[in-house]
Amino acid sequence: MISSILQNASIVYRSRSDRNLEDNTLRFLSSGEDDNELIYYDVLGTEAHCIMLHEIGILTISELGQILHALLELERNTTLIDLASFEDVHESLEAFVIQQTSLQIGGKMHTARSRNDQVVLDMRMKIRDDINNISTYMLDLIRSLLKKAAENKKTVTLLYTHLQQAQVGTFSHLLLSYVEALFRDLDRLYFLYNRINQCPLGGGAIGGSSIRINRNRTALLLGFRGLVINSIDATSSRDTMCEHVSSLGIIMTTLSRISADLILWSTSEFDYIDISEENSSSSSAMPQKKNPDPLEIIRGKSGLLLGSMISVFSIVKSLPTGYSRDLQEIKPALWEASRSVQDSLQIMKMVIDSIYVHRERMEQVANNSYAISIDIAEQLVIRKRIPFRTAHKIIGALVEKAVRNGNLPLAQLKREQVEEVLHKVKSDLPAKEILQIIIGLTPEVSVCLRASAGSPNPKHQQQMISILNRKASEYETALSNRKRHLRTSLDALRKVVKNHLLASNE
Amino acid sequence: MISSILQNASIVYRSRSDRNLEDNTLRFLSSGEDDNELIYYDVLGTEAHCIMLHEIGILTISELGQILHALLELERNTTLIDLASFEDVHESLEAFVIQQTSLQIGGKMHTARSRNDQVVLDMRMKIRDDINNISTYMLDLIRSLLKKAAENKKTVTLLYTHLQQAQVGTFSHLLLSYVEALFRDLDRLYFLYNRINQCPLGGGAIGGSSIRINRNRTALLLGFRGLVINSIDATSSRDTMCEHVSSLGIIMTTLSRISADLILWSTSEFDYIDISEENSSSSSAMPQKKNPDPLEIIRGKSGLLLGSMISVFSIVKSLPTGYSRDLQEIKPALWEASRSVQDSLQIMKMVIDSIYVHRERMEQVANNSYAISIDIAEQLVIRKRIPFRTAHKIIGALVEKAVRNGNLPLAQLKREQVEEVLHKVKSDLPAKEILQIIIGLTPEVSVCLRASAGSPNPKHQQQMISILNRKASEYETALSNRKRHLRTSLDALRKVVKNHLLASNE
Amino acid sequence: MISSILQNASIVYRSRSDRNLEDNTLRFLSSGEDDNELIYYDVLGTEAHCIMLHEIGILTISELGQILHALLELERNTTLIDLASFEDVHESLEAFVIQQTSLQIGGKMHTARSRNDQVVLDMRMKIRDDINNISTYMLDLIRSLLKKAAENKKTVTLLYTHLQQAQVGTFSHLLLSYVEALFRDLDRLYFLYNRINQCPLGGGAIGGSSIRINRNRTALLLGFRGLVINSIDATSSRDTMCEHVSSLGIIMTTLSRISADLILWSTSEFDYIDISEENSSSSSAMPQKKNPDPLEIIRGKSGLLLGSMISVFSIVKSLPTGYSRDLQEIKPALWEASRSVQDSLQIMKMVIDSIYVHRERMEQVANNSYAISIDIAEQLVIRKRIPFRTAHKIIGALVEKAVRNGNLPLAQLKREQVEEVLHKVKSDLPAKEILQIIIGLTPEVSVCLRASAGSPNPKHQQQMISILNRKASEYETALSNRKRHLRTSLDALRKVVKNHLLASNE
Amino acid sequence: MISSILQNASIVYRSRSDRNLEDNTLRFLSSGEDDNELIYYDVLGTEAHCIMLHEIGILTISELGQILHALLELERNTTLIDLASFEDVHESLEAFVIQQTSLQIGGKMHTARSRNDQVVLDMRMKIRDDINNISTYMLDLIRSLLKKAAENKKTVTLLYTHLQQAQVGTFSHLLLSYVEALFRDLDRLYFLYNRINQCPLGGGAIGGSSIRINRNRTALLLGFRGLVINSIDATSSRDTMCEHVSSLGIIMTTLSRISADLILWSTSEFDYIDISEENSSSSSAMPQKKNPDPLEIIRGKSGLLLGSMISVFSIVKSLPTGYSRDLQEIKPALWEASRSVQDSLQIMKMVIDSIYVHRERMEQVANNSYAISIDIAEQLVIRKRIPFRTAHKIIGALVEKAVRNGNLPLAQLKREQVEEVLHKVKSDLPAKEILQIIIGLTPEVSVCLRASAGSPNPKHQQQMISILNRKASEYETALSNRKRHLRTSLDALRKVVKNHLLASNE
Repeated sequence: MISSILQNASIVYRSRSDRNLEDNTLRFLSSGEDDNELIYYDVLGTEAHCIMLHEIGILTISELGQILHALLELERNTTLIDLASFEDVHESLEAFVIQQTSLQIGGKMHTARSRNDQVVLDMRMKIRDDINNISTYMLDLIRSLLKKAAENKKTVTLLYTHLQQAQVGTFSHLLLSYVEALFRDLDRLYFLYNRINQCPLGGGAIGGSSIRINRNRTALLLGFRGLVINSIDATSSRDTMCEHVSSLGIIMTTLSRISADLILWSTSEFDYIDISEENSSSSSAMPQKKNPDPLEIIRGKSGLLLGSMISVFSIVKSLPTGYSRDLQEIKPALWEASRSVQDSLQIMKMVIDSIYVHRERMEQVANNSYAISIDIAEQLVIRKRIPFRTAHKIIGALVEKAVRNGNLPLAQLKREQVEEVLHKVKSDLPAKEILQIIIGLTPEVSVCLRASAGSPNPKHQQQMISILNRKASEYETALSNRKRHLRTSLDALRKVVKNHLLASNE
Repeated sequence: MISSILQNASIVYRSRSDRNLEDNTLRFLSSGEDDNELIYYDVLGTEAHCIMLHEIGILTISELGQILHALLELERNTTLIDLASFEDVHESLEAFVIQQTSLQIGGKMHTARSRNDQVVLDMRMKIRDDINNISTYMLDLIRSLLKKAAENKKTVTLLYTHLQQAQVGTFSHLLLSYVEALFRDLDRLYFLYNRINQCPLGGGAIGGSSIRINRNRTALLLGFRGLVINSIDATSSRDTMCEHVSSLGIIMTTLSRISADLILWSTSEFDYIDISEENSSSSSAMPQKKNPDPLEIIRGKSGLLLGSMISVFSIVKSLPTGYSRDLQEIKPALWEASRSVQDSLQIMKMVIDSIYVHRERMEQVANNSYAISIDIAEQLVIRKRIPFRTAHKIIGALVEKAVRNGNLPLAQLKREQVEEVLHKVKSDLPAKEILQIIIGLTPEVSVCLRASAGSPNPKHQQQMISILNRKASEYETALSNRKRHLRTSLDALRKVVKNHLLASNE
Repeated sequence: MISSILQNASIVYRSRSDRNLEDNTLRFLSSGEDDNELIYYDVLGTEAHCIMLHEIGILTISELGQILHALLELERNTTLIDLASFEDVHESLEAFVIQQTSLQIGGKMHTARSRNDQVVLDMRMKIRDDINNISTYMLDLIRSLLKKAAENKKTVTLLYTHLQQAQVGTFSHLLLSYVEALFRDLDRLYFLYNRINQCPLGGGAIGGSSIRINRNRTALLLGFRGLVINSIDATSSRDTMCEHVSSLGIIMTTLSRISADLILWSTSEFDYIDISEENSSSSSAMPQKKNPDPLEIIRGKSGLLLGSMISVFSIVKSLPTGYSRDLQEIKPALWEASRSVQDSLQIMKMVIDSIYVHRERMEQVANNSYAISIDIAEQLVIRKRIPFRTAHKIIGALVEKAVRNGNLPLAQLKREQVEEVLHKVKSDLPAKEILQIIIGLTPEVSVCLRASAGSPNPKHQQQMISILNRKASEYETALSNRKRHLRTSLDALRKVVKNHLLASNE
Repeated sequence: MISSILQNASIVYRSRSDRNLEDNTLRFLSSGEDDNELIYYDVLGTEAHCIMLHEIGILTISELGQILHALLELERNTTLIDLASFEDVHESLEAFVIQQTSLQIGGKMHTARSRNDQVVLDMRMKIRDDINNISTYMLDLIRSLLKKAAENKKTVTLLYTHLQQAQVGTFSHLLLSYVEALFRDLDRLYFLYNRINQCPLGGGAIGGSSIRINRNRTALLLGFRGLVINSIDATSSRDTMCEHVSSLGIIMTTLSRISADLILWSTSEFDYIDISEENSSSSSAMPQKKNPDPLEIIRGKSGLLLGSMISVFSIVKSLPTGYSRDLQEIKPALWEASRSVQDSLQIMKMVIDSIYVHRERMEQVANNSYAISIDIAEQLVIRKRIPFRTAHKIIGALVEKAVRNGNLPLAQLKREQVEEVLHKVKSDLPAKEILQIIIGLTPEVSVCLRASAGSPNPKHQQQMISILNRKASEYETALSNRKRHLRTSLDALRKVVKNHLLASNE
């Protein structure tokens, strides 16, 4: 059967040549495998196109009926077409329909259409769905983070800069910082969607068609919100694809940061969190180990995404206007990027849900650290009205003294030691008072004193969690409206298909 | 003097150590040169911060006055500070103010502030301006393209796919396709601006401050539209920078496509356009040559932009939360990217303004080409109601015949030849009628017959030019509002500075 | 059966946990699919390891026999193991052997071995073969280019810089420039091979083993030329993989240049060559077209390779020492890169073999061009002893005059015109003599006058072809020695396996 | 003066046009700044070229003398030429010489030469020096690492995989693993040098020259080891530049790994090493902090290098044959990459020299960890002859028991507890004996038992240090021979210059 399709295939596109492509070349040329993900969209696009062709008088109702019948069959069983024997999904699909109907009928399907606008149509429909899926997973992850944050509003922990202990903070605060970044990542996709959700069909090969097709009609049937109007632009531009892969790259960059944090925090040395055994992996050689493999793979996939970005951008860069076959190669890069992001978001959510927080360890390390130094300096600024730089210097000298005395916690410095330091830095502040400030500044007190908007103060945490939950709800609503619009449009398309099928059978 | 500043410098940050950084290390560490572009913003940010510190009672009016005095001096002459001797602009600036005032006064400036929020503030202020500049240049280029398009609505030319002659079109149509892409590129920056124009100041090192600073006040003084609220997010996230460099990368990808087209079209072989001598370059060895160097450099710079993207993304990827010094290295990549885009846009506008179109050559090549084949096929579909695939096959066979007869234009095929072909492909269409269709289809007729929305039809060109000009006006208005808002805000800041200076002198 | 393997699997690695990995996580974690290409190597490596374990007394002959029996079964039918249910090929393989033998026996296989050294072993063995295959295809392509060059030593054509007509040359000269680049590309792989062909087995997890294994023995059995001695280095370093993917990237960059040239030269506008129909592709909409798709795809794949490079490098960058799971993700990038290069080389050879050269067209365009300008200038330098810069200026003015007179060929300038020009540039050279020089300088004469070593002069072509053919022979010999060494080693391994199997059955 | 040079400039290259390039365009076109690094090489190349031109009779001794005189002036003071007013260094230099001599004399300098071969010559000469410098710094770093390793052969520490404590090792072993990678990185440059050190001069614009130049003579004068023979290849190929930037990228990847390790090991949580204060940096806000900034910047610069790689590769990719101006843009990317690597290597050496090792802390953490688990398992394999997988399982269960009892060190498990575990895993091994094994396996014992070649065993450390020191000596000798060859060649060139100058003055 394949060979008979192939003969049809040669009928299909090879007008100038009697010979089929040599096997090796065909395999190389074929985007078959990468197009697997596009069959569904190619069928939908072809349905809409043929309905429109019927409406403008190119296809009779009977011809339309036969074509739709073949397409429905394909929709039910996509394995009916043999991607490997053709250059791409479009060729395979046309060959299948011609074989199921006749050249006389199926041969009309490609009127006022080219693979050049068709492939962009399919890609846009797929990316549209991908964006919605990814957005859903992002919101799921955001909700998990918000939940975990709500449980940890008062979980005191250290915050790091340069991987060095910097300031005392709360664990929720870190989680909320992820949420903020993820919302921006989501927002990027949200606006990109509008640029993607424009219909290129009708652009033809590059210069449109002299057939009076109705571009708005096909766009409407397929749920698009407008046209990529200029036919050259419709078939040649790939900037939205570049934007898509960049946006995915940024998401993965955010996830790679979360991964880096959690991997570090689950080392024996930090020991702040436990990643559940379901989300870690044993060692083949070392029985004691529990490796944070899912997080490492997410981090690894963020590297792959950078690669996908460069693949897409460097293929597009410097290509002259007009479809070139180079563009075929951006498809696998895009599909893989999309898959990686979807997987990584789901896995990250599972990891977040499962992390167990070592509150006592966090607090104990905070207690023994010098990370309250800046709080002390600020108390000196507030209470003793000395310049911050002077306070900074005094505390710096105190820390140095404490470090030299066996990494003593500041609160265990003796009054004489404080006096020595003050003397050395020529300060006349009373040592006793400074010591009182230090002793009063436990990590809990420290975070509760934090006064700047958006700080780790548990009070701020609560506010931010509320606001962010509200924001999540808004996005969830907007997203579900979008999805409903698509579903409704495609349901309507299917109804039109069905009606035409019925009409053609009468 | 430098050495005395340096001594101050050691006062400034080196609380723990008596030694200055070794020279070699300092040079390596210093982001001095890359920070040249940030001095202006660092001064503004410091002014706003100090005014707020005064308003909440940290600085007296006299202290504020002295600090502002030093800052104004610096604003007038940025070379007063010695970037090379310090780690970065923030350190240099603080050292300068301390030297001009005293440790007692200048030493208060850094209250409730850290380099970690400061650097992001500066970067956001600079990128804000960069985006506005780039947007202006984009609109200038768009206007030039629209003007050139308006002159060429009826300039018939070939359109290419796979670099092969594909369809007849109009030159304006190609230019408008660039405009469409540039508008999307512009739109991306337009929304990014909102994400960038959020104030991170007050995030402190990472965990905010226990001083009751007024973050909204500094944001307002600096013209921001809101806060990056979460202090970890404010200091650690670089996703908007990633987005910025990607958006610039996409712009350059668009420009690289325009360059590729124009370079090709100005070869002797295509010979469709001339690039003015001002925008081309002679050969050192070959006197006859006129090389399209500016376009080649734009194309080259689009490669640099891919590099900048990867620099930024790969530095950010996998960094744990909290400022790390790695992030310093994204600054040169961002500034260079910004400069390349601004230069390239201006140069591209000059090139577009100056291109001379060889209308007759374009038309003649179109006339001799087989690019009207698809028009002929579509006429057969319309007039003879045969399937497109059948028409495609017939025309394909005719072209083959013509090619074998010395690349004869189709219109010069003899009736017998057409009949031979029809016989061979088993078509019973009348040869005479086909020949009439062919002869009637001159390139001019061809484009005027084009009926799908967004086609090269001169009628469509006119519509699209009007719409795109209107769109340009809208963006111009919006952009100028944005710029005015910034200008007004900074003027207001300067007025506040002046008033405080006056008050401090009383 | 799979479930029973899975139960074994949990026996295999999951010492700390009773639960198997959750399904979703497993799918995400599993490098199964990407490991398909490694099964063969994992089997060989395991055979060698077990033979050595027997030789040092860890495995009895009977235990070894049973393990080898299972491994041979697997070698015959790799589908026996179920990659998808395990984290990777190593786990799958061990589970299979344990299931075929017993925990008591198969459980010894992993003595003094870890997945960390095992995966690097497999990768090195595969890359070793990939390099040899790629080298073979490169030499095939080189031979095709040399053959085509030999046919075109005297085929005069234009050479371009900035895509502008620059100098007259010969077509073979261009082909030989490809050969030169390909030889350097080949040479890079040739030396990389030595770095790859070092055995990491015995590195263990990271710190080696306290079992007295014989690392040199396994290395020898597997055909390696030495050890990656340091166990941390053996398991953690990926620099040779970075080098591999860069070397492949450079090859693709070379192929992308050849593609760009041939695509351009096969446009209607250049029309210098024809790419055979087997290696081009028809248009779905435009019957007249013959698109150079294979070349475009090669060019597209060169973009993919840049992506693969960045994937590998950015995953490796900044990873701390010691195997991290991120590294798993470089495998698909490497395998895809390898596949792309192999395919592209074979396709390029087919294209080169099939191109048809339009000699007359090449010559005619050369004749009508100003590309002999530099030859004329040089003749003036030689014959009239004037400075090159002066000659350059005179010819420049002559070209300008000719261009203004309707792009007249220089040889058709009238004596008066030449005189006018000479007068304008204040030269007292005799117009007549200049015209004689011009008229004498046909393209054929031009290339034959070329005197610098390595020029397009047919005489130089012949010399270079001979040298390059000799070079190809040398590489072919060296490559076949390498392949023979591998084959011999693995044959010897198989013989040892067979002998041990026999011995175990006695 | 500049304006008069500019007028000359218009004489120099602008044969076809009376107008100078518009200012904006010139600034954009000019590679001036990036060419600063090339002036020196352009002077040398021009000296050699002119000497050869004299030898073949193009320049008289007097003309040569005047040109050399101007060039020597320039060599002494490179600021004499005004890069900003010209397109590139080659144009500036020629304009300068013409101005210093006359058009009649200086105008001969460019005979049989083009910017296209000249720029590649300069780049190759610079890269040649860069490679030698980088190699020197690499060897310096290697020596520092070997010295530090020699001091720490017996410093027991943990080795990590997945950032989890994996096996006990020695600190020297880690340092030596860096050395191994650096030697491979060095080796890559070593062979690249041979490909770079080939002379392209004489390739002309693309097709060589009809002047009988002596390419071997100029190559010899400039210290090259051979020619890039094919003139198209000489001027068009950039594969060696791609290889160069990749090789630098790999070096930075290695350095980024060392940085990542050391940053981590110097956190408070790991606390294994101290980085000296000269090589760390204070915090502007947090007085207690000592940040590992130099290492972070090295890691950041490794990201920049990936960017440089992509800049170079994506500019080169898909460019047709023949110099295109895009290639100008690879220069800044290459120079910056070279500078980053040189700086980073020197800084890394300083860091390594200065790190202070916390031996007791390392040992103590090793003592309390479960990282000897694999050693225990291997002892069971050796002593009790049980399968490794069984031993793995037993130890895994013991670790689990110990973890559940408050992270008890294994050596503190009670006999009853061990018995419980053995019972649970159905093992009949004697608990007492297992406990004895555990107790005997201190970290020191553990490393001394390590038996596989290349292990952390101090004995192996000593061997590897000796071998690697010897290897360093060999490279040092080879490198110094190379440098001497260059120095000798250029000294000889200077002597020839001097002799000709003298002769011309007679």
